[in-house]
Amino acid sequence: MKRTLLVDVKNQVGQEVQVQGWVHRIREMGKINFVLLRDRSGFLQLVWEQKPEFTLESVLTVTGEVKENEKAPGGVELLVRDFEVLAIADPELPLPVNLDPDKHNIDALLDHRIISLRNPKIRSIFELQSALLRSLSETMHREGFYEIKTSKLIGSGTEGGTGLFSVDYFDTKVYLAQSPQFYKQAMVSSGLERVFEISHAYRAEKHDTPRHLNEYVSFDVEMAFIESELDLIDFERRLLDQVFERLGQLCPTIFDIWESSLPEKGYMEKVPVVDHDEAKDIISSETGKKVFEIAPEGERALCDWAQKKHGVDAVFINGWPRKKRPFYTYPKDQKTMSFDLIFRGLEITTGGRRINEYKMLLETLPKFGMSEQGLEDYLSIFKYGCPPHGGFAIGVERLTQKLLGIDNVKMASPFPRDRKRVRP
Amino acid sequence: MKRTLLVDVKNQVGQEVQVQGWVHRIREMGKINFVLLRDRSGFLQLVWEQKPEFTLESVLTVTGEVKENEKAPGGVELLVRDFEVLAIADPELPLPVNLDPDKHNIDALLDHRIISLRNPKIRSIFELQSALLRSLSETMHREGFYEIKTSKLIGSGTEGGTGLFSVDYFDTKVYLAQSPQFYKQAMVSSGLERVFEISHAYRAEKHDTPRHLNEYVSFDVEMAFIESELDLIDFERRLLDQVFERLGQLCPTIFDIWESSLPEKGYMEKVPVVDHDEAKDIISSETGKKVFEIAPEGERALCDWAQKKHGVDAVFINGWPRKKRPFYTYPKDQKTMSFDLIFRGLEITTGGRRINEYKMLLETLPKFGMSEQGLEDYLSIFKYGCPPHGGFAIGVERLTQKLLGIDNVKMASPFPRDRKRVRP
Repeated sequence: MKRTLLVDVKNQVGQEVQVQGWVHRIREMGKINFVLLRDRSGFLQLVWEQKPEFTLESVLTVTGEVKENEKAPGGVELLVRDFEVLAIADPELPLPVNLDPDKHNIDALLDHRIISLRNPKIRSIFELQSALLRSLSETMHREGFYEIKTSKLIGSGTEGGTGLFSVDYFDTKVYLAQSPQFYKQAMVSSGLERVFEISHAYRAEKHDTPRHLNEYVSFDVEMAFIESELDLIDFERRLLDQVFERLGQLCPTIFDIWESSLPEKGYMEKVPVVDHDEAKDIISSETGKKVFEIAPEGERALCDWAQKKHGVDAVFINGWPRKKRPFYTYPKDQKTMSFDLIFRGLEITTGGRRINEYKMLLETLPKFGMSEQGLEDYLSIFKYGCPPHGGFAIGVERLTQKLLGIDNVKMASPFPRDRKRVRP
Repeated sequence: MKRTLLVDVKNQVGQEVQVQGWVHRIREMGKINFVLLRDRSGFLQLVWEQKPEFTLESVLTVTGEVKENEKAPGGVELLVRDFEVLAIADPELPLPVNLDPDKHNIDALLDHRIISLRNPKIRSIFELQSALLRSLSETMHREGFYEIKTSKLIGSGTEGGTGLFSVDYFDTKVYLAQSPQFYKQAMVSSGLERVFEISHAYRAEKHDTPRHLNEYVSFDVEMAFIESELDLIDFERRLLDQVFERLGQLCPTIFDIWESSLPEKGYMEKVPVVDHDEAKDIISSETGKKVFEIAPEGERALCDWAQKKHGVDAVFINGWPRKKRPFYTYPKDQKTMSFDLIFRGLEITTGGRRINEYKMLLETLPKFGMSEQGLEDYLSIFKYGCPPHGGFAIGVERLTQKLLGIDNVKMASPFPRDRKRVRP
């Protein structure tokens, strides 16, 4: 007999079906017993006459007849005729699967990750993340970008040696890449012109905050023949508006589970672009404090301001000062052609035009205390003819977090890595 | 003026257009000079009256009038009216971009990777790889799988400690994952049931062969509620037939460049499944040699046999002996429910059903000289109820290599890592 997904059982009233899933809840009433079965698609109430001899989280195959019952979840239930226990679960769960995850602290949820991922609300984070990865990739391919996969093992960092994890690589030492910056620029200059990559990136920073991960998934874009960061901002607007629309089609119900909401159609078009200085003024007048640099509190204040003023809780900040940006950022007067996107109070994108002229790059290095040494491969991208180009990156876990309104970004990674956490 | 891609210039005869790209070839004829411009879409002959004062690989913006000329590549050329040099290239290229890459040895091509990637034939490998990543992802999402991104930093190896690169992680040591095996099984048991991941994987093996990379891109699949490896073989057939068909739509011309061919419609349906013992007998009778294990030569002999016998150059081998497979492989008599797919003479997939019963797993460990210690997280997947499941992985570079008929898998990675190579 073929398996019916639980979501489809309601269309088979009066028929015999076979279902498979996990035991989510058991209610023994004496003569009659109810078991709530869970599969990837939903839940179903199973009605048993005999006493259930299995534990919560055990995996079953069950056959029976579908009956209407308006009191049952989804309006139907299954009168069990036959069943098989495919796997029996230990009766002592380290964490209950069927309770509200908000009742547990994050360390418990992450320590017992194998179990906490089974909670339907927590699992839904990764259903959304899957749809997000899908829509990003679909949109980029449709926009004519090539998908690349570049090495994460690098001889040295383009951004300097700090913040890098070192790897014992046979008889030498290499580092885990902080971003595919070097390689995405190389692939642009290879003639692919427009590329994207979705891969892991590593930051060996000792922070332990709700907004940082030491290993995260970076969605990286790089495109040739642009003039300034404004071309990139335009592209990111178009990209994210398509992605948000697609998420609405792919997973319309997850936002309700999280009491969050998807940005409405045309949201990104309304996001204001403010200069870095102007952003500091806005934060200052919103918070009543003197602003030296744009800190997390300032990012939240900016989004509140944008919500009042433009009806969207997001801001592009461009015109960053040179000393706040990496050496390869294209200069413009005393500032740079670079930008951040702050979305719902959190920076989710950094990007900008890059220096593509070899001479300008050579002149820039000493200003950042750097030399050509160790950068020969990077510099060869520009020595042999590289078009004007730029790009940006979006942290996939941060975007997931902000779309659902999750407190801590670690909850948006299935197996997060922080300073103390390297398991499971 | 808006940029016209070179592939579209032929539709604009008699009109003024703006094009942008790299200088691929310069032919000075005295009064009249020809420059072949290259962009991501193709080539265009530019006709100049003045002497070109730029080098090969420089990047230009050019405007002019489109004229028909049947002698020009593509049947049209551009009479240059105006141009701007966006980036000038050093006159001494370490490697010519516009020559047949087969004339250079692989070390030269990889040492000067930033330049060799610009060669259109080499670049086309990564156009195909992009289309391959796209079709894999599209097909998996359409088949109802969830895309996951799991940590590559692991506390210890499920496959034992050999072959792992170690990473200095703050005050401790972790390892680069050889595969997402542990995590994809955990995500199946989380209730997502059907998952896939396309991410980097690492093997610290000291081989230096045309079929190995120390860092590669692994396409991983894992699915619940299967009965044996035959369900996985069926799924891989359906998956790859869809992927091959899609590649034909997305990049119909790249196979000609490489004088290779795309497997025809229904190819995967015809691939025979042979038992491991039977495979050895076939190799023996094909090569006239005694066969102790299935080596690269044997893989090629098997595909030759399949081509003669079944009209396809691929074979599934199932029924592998237990000692040839990892401890978690589901046993069947003295053998296992596992398989390889050999495609065009090279193993591109390993997969199988996994042990999902906690007791069976505990009993299996000592047979492989292992203990529960260090495997607690892995074992907890099964301790708390895990459905029957299995999966497989495809090496993305190997599949790219075999689709195009490339000699060495290193050429199918933009920045390959081997024992000696960690740059660029």
